[in-house]
Amino acid sequence: MKKIVLAFSGGLDTSFCVPYLKEKGYEVYAATVDTGGFTRGEMKKIKNRAKELGVTKHFVIDGKPDLYHQIVSYVIKANLLRGGVYPLCAGPERILQAAKVVDIAKQIGAGAVAHGSTGAGNDQVRFDVAIHTLAPELEIVTPIRELGITRDEEVAFLEKHGIPVEMSSKDYSVNKGMLGTTIGGKETKNSWELPPDDVYPTVVDIESAPKNGEEIIISFQKGLPTAVNGKPADGIKIMNFLDKLGAKHGVGKGMHLGNTILGIKGRVVFEAPASLILIKAHKELEKLILTKWQSFWKDMVSEAYGNFIHEGLYFDPVARDIEALIDSSQQVVTGDVKVKLHKGNSIVIGVQSPYSLMDKKVATYGEQNLLWTGSEAAGFSKIYGLQGVLAGKAKQLGDQYE
Amino acid sequence: MKKIVLAFSGGLDTSFCVPYLKEKGYEVYAATVDTGGFTRGEMKKIKNRAKELGVTKHFVIDGKPDLYHQIVSYVIKANLLRGGVYPLCAGPERILQAAKVVDIAKQIGAGAVAHGSTGAGNDQVRFDVAIHTLAPELEIVTPIRELGITRDEEVAFLEKHGIPVEMSSKDYSVNKGMLGTTIGGKETKNSWELPPDDVYPTVVDIESAPKNGEEIIISFQKGLPTAVNGKPADGIKIMNFLDKLGAKHGVGKGMHLGNTILGIKGRVVFEAPASLILIKAHKELEKLILTKWQSFWKDMVSEAYGNFIHEGLYFDPVARDIEALIDSSQQVVTGDVKVKLHKGNSIVIGVQSPYSLMDKKVATYGEQNLLWTGSEAAGFSKIYGLQGVLAGKAKQLGDQYE
Amino acid sequence: MKKIVLAFSGGLDTSFCVPYLKEKGYEVYAATVDTGGFTRGEMKKIKNRAKELGVTKHFVIDGKPDLYHQIVSYVIKANLLRGGVYPLCAGPERILQAAKVVDIAKQIGAGAVAHGSTGAGNDQVRFDVAIHTLAPELEIVTPIRELGITRDEEVAFLEKHGIPVEMSSKDYSVNKGMLGTTIGGKETKNSWELPPDDVYPTVVDIESAPKNGEEIIISFQKGLPTAVNGKPADGIKIMNFLDKLGAKHGVGKGMHLGNTILGIKGRVVFEAPASLILIKAHKELEKLILTKWQSFWKDMVSEAYGNFIHEGLYFDPVARDIEALIDSSQQVVTGDVKVKLHKGNSIVIGVQSPYSLMDKKVATYGEQNLLWTGSEAAGFSKIYGLQGVLAGKAKQLGDQYE
Amino acid sequence: MKKIVLAFSGGLDTSFCVPYLKEKGYEVYAATVDTGGFTRGEMKKIKNRAKELGVTKHFVIDGKPDLYHQIVSYVIKANLLRGGVYPLCAGPERILQAAKVVDIAKQIGAGAVAHGSTGAGNDQVRFDVAIHTLAPELEIVTPIRELGITRDEEVAFLEKHGIPVEMSSKDYSVNKGMLGTTIGGKETKNSWELPPDDVYPTVVDIESAPKNGEEIIISFQKGLPTAVNGKPADGIKIMNFLDKLGAKHGVGKGMHLGNTILGIKGRVVFEAPASLILIKAHKELEKLILTKWQSFWKDMVSEAYGNFIHEGLYFDPVARDIEALIDSSQQVVTGDVKVKLHKGNSIVIGVQSPYSLMDKKVATYGEQNLLWTGSEAAGFSKIYGLQGVLAGKAKQLGDQYE
Repeated sequence: MKKIVLAFSGGLDTSFCVPYLKEKGYEVYAATVDTGGFTRGEMKKIKNRAKELGVTKHFVIDGKPDLYHQIVSYVIKANLLRGGVYPLCAGPERILQAAKVVDIAKQIGAGAVAHGSTGAGNDQVRFDVAIHTLAPELEIVTPIRELGITRDEEVAFLEKHGIPVEMSSKDYSVNKGMLGTTIGGKETKNSWELPPDDVYPTVVDIESAPKNGEEIIISFQKGLPTAVNGKPADGIKIMNFLDKLGAKHGVGKGMHLGNTILGIKGRVVFEAPASLILIKAHKELEKLILTKWQSFWKDMVSEAYGNFIHEGLYFDPVARDIEALIDSSQQVVTGDVKVKLHKGNSIVIGVQSPYSLMDKKVATYGEQNLLWTGSEAAGFSKIYGLQGVLAGKAKQLGDQYE
Repeated sequence: MKKIVLAFSGGLDTSFCVPYLKEKGYEVYAATVDTGGFTRGEMKKIKNRAKELGVTKHFVIDGKPDLYHQIVSYVIKANLLRGGVYPLCAGPERILQAAKVVDIAKQIGAGAVAHGSTGAGNDQVRFDVAIHTLAPELEIVTPIRELGITRDEEVAFLEKHGIPVEMSSKDYSVNKGMLGTTIGGKETKNSWELPPDDVYPTVVDIESAPKNGEEIIISFQKGLPTAVNGKPADGIKIMNFLDKLGAKHGVGKGMHLGNTILGIKGRVVFEAPASLILIKAHKELEKLILTKWQSFWKDMVSEAYGNFIHEGLYFDPVARDIEALIDSSQQVVTGDVKVKLHKGNSIVIGVQSPYSLMDKKVATYGEQNLLWTGSEAAGFSKIYGLQGVLAGKAKQLGDQYE
Repeated sequence: MKKIVLAFSGGLDTSFCVPYLKEKGYEVYAATVDTGGFTRGEMKKIKNRAKELGVTKHFVIDGKPDLYHQIVSYVIKANLLRGGVYPLCAGPERILQAAKVVDIAKQIGAGAVAHGSTGAGNDQVRFDVAIHTLAPELEIVTPIRELGITRDEEVAFLEKHGIPVEMSSKDYSVNKGMLGTTIGGKETKNSWELPPDDVYPTVVDIESAPKNGEEIIISFQKGLPTAVNGKPADGIKIMNFLDKLGAKHGVGKGMHLGNTILGIKGRVVFEAPASLILIKAHKELEKLILTKWQSFWKDMVSEAYGNFIHEGLYFDPVARDIEALIDSSQQVVTGDVKVKLHKGNSIVIGVQSPYSLMDKKVATYGEQNLLWTGSEAAGFSKIYGLQGVLAGKAKQLGDQYE
Repeated sequence: MKKIVLAFSGGLDTSFCVPYLKEKGYEVYAATVDTGGFTRGEMKKIKNRAKELGVTKHFVIDGKPDLYHQIVSYVIKANLLRGGVYPLCAGPERILQAAKVVDIAKQIGAGAVAHGSTGAGNDQVRFDVAIHTLAPELEIVTPIRELGITRDEEVAFLEKHGIPVEMSSKDYSVNKGMLGTTIGGKETKNSWELPPDDVYPTVVDIESAPKNGEEIIISFQKGLPTAVNGKPADGIKIMNFLDKLGAKHGVGKGMHLGNTILGIKGRVVFEAPASLILIKAHKELEKLILTKWQSFWKDMVSEAYGNFIHEGLYFDPVARDIEALIDSSQQVVTGDVKVKLHKGNSIVIGVQSPYSLMDKKVATYGEQNLLWTGSEAAGFSKIYGLQGVLAGKAKQLGDQYE
């Protein structure tokens, strides 16, 4: 019998896939990759579900360390926000999940992998491209996409196979992971309204947030968070901490209207306190340290890098090239950021760094200083814009001649 | 006697310039260009001051319409925020002021212009470059920069000339204009603290903002605001309205740490409710309408355009070229944006447009749709990431060979 | 019977389509769009072929003026060379052909269009995307791609239908158009050899080119050629003239190895004397006139624009936005270019323009000049690189502290 | 007495500096850095000149290995050609010379350095910025710039000090280095003519080049040349070899009209056979290996990198960041390039690489292939351009509504 590894979340779509693939003659192995989205209780349920569905073996992989080190760390270093607002939540998870599923397929000698993506969204592309790249020899099976099946039909199929289905009336689909929780449904299908406050799992509404805000100090080394309020911790723990703290202060909600890989517009809401707080803090720290041109070019390539990750092109070697530029820039991004969380706002109060370009010996903006004299500044000023002056003259002369 | 036109704000520096230039043998004309920074009372004071100082003539110019149409409108269309936060406040004003001063110099046949900039900051460069470009034949005189004089010395000089000086102990220097108010001094000379709440002239602190927020609808046509809550108004009036409304809700404060033209880092705080509300709203509206590649390239060139304006290169013809691209993209940026102002937050709730790409006939994100079939999506997905697949294979093969 | 319009070149693939589509129940209209690739004799043959195949009607459209004005003119203005060498030859033709075929479909009330593209290359995508965009309601039929049929099978099918086929042993496929002639086959299927000299239809080999070169002067107005050696002519005539002159001097051959839309690498050789001569001349003229930043940003967006045209995304509105930037930059690109064609080389000897920035009143490079003094230059030089100086200091200080 | 280190070339300007600086009370050390521009005979003359002028000590440094490894290697890897034509010749040399002069100043405990730049060109900025960055504590003395002295006055001064001056009537100034020889004067001061053939020191004119060309194979490893015709050699030797071979075949002449750092246009001619041959070969090899997006982004940042080197900003840390991206991309740029040099032309005939993306198992361009089916291609084609389709529809709908 042909072995297949199914990327398994325990939801309706991937539950459907198990009996369906078995009927098609596969020996089904399930693989659940935890990318920060499951509580202990949820994982237990998933395990039970896999057993109930009769998979040959259920692999449970903690994908969090790899996710953090390989991708989330670059989301932070590169200040990646799609459309200036959305910390790319789901894309990085799919890449990591696909990679882990491929690992297991190689390990057990499977010739195929399956995922439960529909034909409508981004995830199918992310899974397909990642699997193709990492193991071009593997067959990819996508029952939901292939059948174009509805949720009701899936339920009927499962019940026919004696598998109970808990029908939650699902107005919203929710995807939780290390970078944040993305929520789609109802209001997000058009562009004019937001879902009600209670669809956000943890972030309180602004009214309910504490009257007084709270200040924290986040420390970074080479572009990554290493401590909060002076207490060292690893990046994942810091994200967990900031997720809770932000949620309490109403910080981290957002709406994202963007382009899917397939070309249509998509809209979701999300909550991502830790990602938003860290990216904002990191970005302000960089402003103290990087030169103008470092920031300019890092921002340019990072914008493209964010597209590549979001659009499933993480494995194109261009992503490694851009990561090399980013890593080079982060060698000196070390220092502290003082942030105030208050009624939905994440306010950077100050930054400091041993690599600060606001050197004490350099005069501060708007005051006399010692780095140059007034006449040197006048010389600079005269030559600095010269080409525009010449272009202005040439335009006048040329227009006369025409 | 040689005529000179002095860009005159009535402050200590430009007051000093009048008797100083007269002593140097100039016939001094003063020109005050209102770029949105003066109340009626303040303007009256400036006029009195000019008279008191004995200028030959004092020109008062309303620069607001030109400022809005020539530059502020592009700040909005291009979503220009330096460092992602600062709406360029002072740069555009200096450009416009320089242009108006040059106009007057030509009108009265002056051979020289003067401005009160020091040798430390950006303004000297903006003035110099603009004047050189618009009238290369004019001599530029900058007494404060040339003398490297201190404020105390300026006061002494004025008193010696019988001109009274009101000495406010000035911890902060404040620059107010259409795009916002920029504040520097004390805490902003280092990078770790913010000035106290009371240095912001109009925006209340978050605690004091109304408990309940307020929703408004801003309408745009071809990228520019044309109505609020259905009431048509011109852009300047809308900015005035939003400045007041934002201020009431604690919206519009910020801190900016960036690069000066001369290469040092500078830090200021600012308040700019209208600019921030409009840019955020405009940006979200664009997301509904522009294609991925329109946004990508508009953002790329706009980042450069923002630099050019900030850095005094507004008159380089590249700025006209980029404006042409921006204007082209804005032909369809028409629609409404629903914004909630609440406790320091400016939240875009929804957008709608006759040019929306979230067409009803297009399936919404995450659901089955009619634009393509599952098997077409699978075909797309297979070919879409192909080059990364090939690169992966080639890497493996090549590494073996090495 | 359903009307269908077939993009018809008279070759084997599109000849096959006629009886095949008729068999499928369509009333077949053929449309041949001349984009500069047909001699009078060839066009006569194509007309006979259409008659012979029994199309209901054969439309012959002169696409050259539209091709020149809508696309070729931007290839020149934007100096578009894929990979620095290839003037995009076939892409623009397909776009224009698709547009004309759609026009005819609308005109005669056809519900479908057909093209003879295979499933392997770029042309299918260019046709499909253009047709989808211009007339989403039209069905697209692609017999060759759908059947995956071989050339031998096509011949057999045609002969079975009593249609004679001239079998030229076709080692190379040749595509001729206004921008140049592209040739693929045999050697171009790998990366190590070039086809023999005689596959290039007009450009002589270097040995055979005249011993002495020939100088010409090309005049441009607003970025487009308007005269050669002082004789005014329209752009298409100038291209015809330069194609012949370049061919005589061995100028205009090239090899292009690039990325297809579908992700694989493709290699072709080409000859394109006029395109290469004009682009090189135009580019050198721009260097005399445009500012550094105009060139930089025009080049950046043009690189993307070239991709969009090549990859079938010409109708994405981003292309209109970029054209606006390009057009703005070309307002002053007026002047003469002196070119020498000699033994395969196209050498720009000199350029001149009423808008030249090498103004006589500006000192020439490497000599003393009047625009600034030595001490102003020293001031400029000191401040110009200041941020790098600060970054160097900060690095030293920071590293100590670490 | 204060020690000063003078960057010394033995020419009129730096000869003048020696007695002048001694008169000003300095103890003058001369440093001559060989960046590939001196024959043994020329170096002997320089040494004699230094002695004759009475410097305290004359340091002669072989800067070639450092120049190649630190900068020239990136000119090749990044395919750096200013304006698409000019391999940056002089800029990299000045940076390296400044760095070596600073080394010597530190070594002998000098408090000042001097260079002979005028106030007109790029070199003053390159020297100043490099010295400021590497040793901000050093005083910089620039007699020629400070005095604004003419060549005749320099001669008179030297003769007054008993120092003989060989007066060559210098129509052209020539700068020779590893990347090429740059020539300015007479015709290059305007934009319409080229200097006569005999000003180019080594490259023959096209007429005189051998009737038959010559094929060579250049091998690259990780982006750098490692062998010619199978014979391994280091990069500098390969450049020497190619300089000679190219010169024989008339390859490597060019004209460059570009922007100086100070904003004016400058024009020079140059010969640089090795640089041009290597860059062209390297670029074609990359096309076989890099993905579309690797090339796109490498080209974008390389364009900026070229500006930074040319404009004296080599020491801004952004240059290190970009080098990291370039190095990452070059890991697989290994393979052979077959080049034909013939009558001024450098023609790439073919490329091959163990990392080739033109994999045999991948169907060649224009033919049926096995990586996808026709129907997958149709699916791709349908979805690929979808957003343009939607934008087209939305435009129609929106315009109606307006």
